[in-house]
Amino acid sequence: MERFLLLLDGPWATLIVRELLQGPRRFSELRDALEGISAHTLTHRLRRFEAHGIVTRTVYAEIPPRVVYELTPLGESLRDILYAMAAWGQSVTNQQLMAATD
Amino acid sequence: MERFLLLLDGPWATLIVRELLQGPRRFSELRDALEGISAHTLTHRLRRFEAHGIVTRTVYAEIPPRVVYELTPLGESLRDILYAMAAWGQSVTNQQLMAATD
Repeated sequence: MERFLLLLDGPWATLIVRELLQGPRRFSELRDALEGISAHTLTHRLRRFEAHGIVTRTVYAEIPPRVVYELTPLGESLRDILYAMAAWGQSVTNQQLMAATD
Repeated sequence: MERFLLLLDGPWATLIVRELLQGPRRFSELRDALEGISAHTLTHRLRRFEAHGIVTRTVYAEIPPRVVYELTPLGESLRDILYAMAAWGQSVTNQQLMAATD
């Protein structure tokens, strides 16, 4: 569990994986899809994922060069967990979600 | 997904649920089991979980009064997700985990 929490730490990490579960993405595509994320945070997160073997970064020698991010098999193996998270979220009623917390 | 991330935000939230998946717990038992958590954080988290319908808080009119926290069915329904997280974490090699990230 701790390893999961270490690698998928915080909402951005999970939302980036969710985006990449739909297929390879360029940096700008990720940035557009993840409303509110800064270029710095996205860069840092992708670099961490790359280092931890969750994402690959491929540079295509085109003009201009094209850089594509893609899930590795380890990253891909998060699919079921993220689907389960989404399904659980749907089982939470609006009333429960909006409950005031002091 | 966003609802999940909203309610299970951060490692402590997930680790508290993991602990309660093993059965009802008193505050002191939770605090002992969750190394490094402050009383303030634990109190705040439990209150949030209670408000969102994930945990119940039962006071037994004993001397001194006994307070027990327990997962609701909604909280209990997180079991499979947390097991999947733990299983995924075990599939991450030490080498991947320790990879340097600048």
